[in-house]
Amino acid sequence: MAGDGAPEPLHAAKVLETILYANDIDAAERFYSNILGLEVYARAPTRQVFFKLDDQMLLIFNPSETVIPPKPDAKLPVPPHGAVGHGHVCFTASADEIDRWKEHLQSHDVTIEADFLWPSGGRSIYFRDPAGNCLEFAEPNIWGFKS
Amino acid sequence: MAGDGAPEPLHAAKVLETILYANDIDAAERFYSNILGLEVYARAPTRQVFFKLDDQMLLIFNPSETVIPPKPDAKLPVPPHGAVGHGHVCFTASADEIDRWKEHLQSHDVTIEADFLWPSGGRSIYFRDPAGNCLEFAEPNIWGFKS
Repeated sequence: MAGDGAPEPLHAAKVLETILYANDIDAAERFYSNILGLEVYARAPTRQVFFKLDDQMLLIFNPSETVIPPKPDAKLPVPPHGAVGHGHVCFTASADEIDRWKEHLQSHDVTIEADFLWPSGGRSIYFRDPAGNCLEFAEPNIWGFKS
Repeated sequence: MAGDGAPEPLHAAKVLETILYANDIDAAERFYSNILGLEVYARAPTRQVFFKLDDQMLLIFNPSETVIPPKPDAKLPVPPHGAVGHGHVCFTASADEIDRWKEHLQSHDVTIEADFLWPSGGRSIYFRDPAGNCLEFAEPNIWGFKS
């Protein structure tokens, strides 16, 4: 609250759910749990797999199912969504962790597609999930966040 | 570090960049800055607009530009990515903030496409950005996170 009792201006401050799409939910579950070490929170056979991170969710949906609108009498009328192509998500990692991730990914035959330092500091490595989504580990200082 | 000095197992713990796609970057900038109150961090005319949230970035890319692979001699060889369709992102909000967001969005002629309580507790409201991406405000307890 501001000093005069008026509510603070609204602004979207924090992401609760980051979404990627994959047609093969089994392959996504294997990759994100076995290789990226994520905890499966929930799963629906061919539709979705949800992972719980430290303070938000990573949701992976099969777009061929989520583009279908909810039935008119649905109790949980989640609107349709779904995209085709290669999405992108970047996860936070320290410099040491990026070294370890690179070795870990390569030991699982995951190709490191790019590995470079940004001009203003910080390193990124890029690779793909089984659906072809572009994944990245980067140091938070590439955006001015503290490590 | 574990007690025996071995490094802890790697796991992707935190998202640094959440991505959405939009062909009209001007319209995206207006919507996310003017209506969702986000701070523009960087902008490239027709390619991208980046927003800084509390502890991560929301990056909006024009997929028709980001699907183009980097040149062989690019100093920053960011891999291609890009999706077509309607993506989805959910932002955290408290119960009070969801009330305020609903009123705020409607005052800007943004349609609330769905508004419901989840069986295990917590409310979600859904709406669209100008590109048709499905956006949501939800209480963090819908995933078991503390409010």
